[in-house]
Amino acid sequence: MSAGRYEIRFSGAGGQGLILAGIIMGEAASIYDGKQAVQSQSYGPEARGGASKSEVIISDEPIDFPKAAAVDALLALTQEACDKYSRDLKEGGILLVDSDLVKKPPKGKFTLVRFPIINTAKNEVGRTIVANIVALGAMVALTGIVSRESAEKAVLSRVPEAFTDLNRKAFRAGYDKALQARDK
Amino acid sequence: MSAGRYEIRFSGAGGQGLILAGIIMGEAASIYDGKQAVQSQSYGPEARGGASKSEVIISDEPIDFPKAAAVDALLALTQEACDKYSRDLKEGGILLVDSDLVKKPPKGKFTLVRFPIINTAKNEVGRTIVANIVALGAMVALTGIVSRESAEKAVLSRVPEAFTDLNRKAFRAGYDKALQARDK
Repeated sequence: MSAGRYEIRFSGAGGQGLILAGIIMGEAASIYDGKQAVQSQSYGPEARGGASKSEVIISDEPIDFPKAAAVDALLALTQEACDKYSRDLKEGGILLVDSDLVKKPPKGKFTLVRFPIINTAKNEVGRTIVANIVALGAMVALTGIVSRESAEKAVLSRVPEAFTDLNRKAFRAGYDKALQARDK
Repeated sequence: MSAGRYEIRFSGAGGQGLILAGIIMGEAASIYDGKQAVQSQSYGPEARGGASKSEVIISDEPIDFPKAAAVDALLALTQEACDKYSRDLKEGGILLVDSDLVKKPPKGKFTLVRFPIINTAKNEVGRTIVANIVALGAMVALTGIVSRESAEKAVLSRVPEAFTDLNRKAFRAGYDKALQARDK
């Protein structure tokens, strides 16, 4: 998992904090893990409402082409986003979905991991608003592309100090639940 | 200014809110003005400390190559960022610098606009933290690539409701001062 190019896409609905999740993943990889990273969001005329996404490309080498084309790991927090953005998922890739909201994940040669991401944020961590950080923790665990320590540092550097504990709890809940869901 | 590809780069130091400025510019162009936009940040091993940047590419057509190569408009909030990121500025482009912090702007065939951006945020708007929104207002005024109304809506949709007035004031201060500085 260390060399080469690795593409991650976070998708869901607008307002779910997916850009922040992408920014934190990019900063974890670069600032704390010493890799190259490009984080981006593309908006078309469909940007108002509906499905939205953010992307991170991580590499040991300079990244010449910063657009995701063969996605290694995809998060989908809504069925619409899953339908729209799972086409580019690589064979052998990872698809993480919210099991309450994505009832019909695609079929294919990839590892499907499902757990109730938003419900975990709401009922176990205590605030729906940290669902993006639960999802980020899960993606860090499943991809292994950045270290857990780097990702936690990157989370804490991006959230208001008053919410440090909440976000750490969210990150860890996502991390642990994703591994349980994958391995069960 | 309507057709074709338009590249904007916001540069300065980490922690100055340049990613947020880029996100807001991208959302103004796409969600509110109906154009295509890609917003991105690239991080290398140098990402820890020092100069940092975020970029937005805006077009009426789908954007195939999302990396800035010939920058139409550059903001530089620090001398280091100005030195590092002004090389790709197009002939005929726009360079906006903080006049207190960038004492040696490059020479070249572009429009140089200088005013004390951070000082405006601190002393006229009342909070240094909104310097990014002052700068954004200035870039909207100077580039004309998104409408003032769209940009204001995009700002207000991205900032906490308690800070609506502060951010509106910051945006308008930047917008007005940039035009004064350019036309004087």
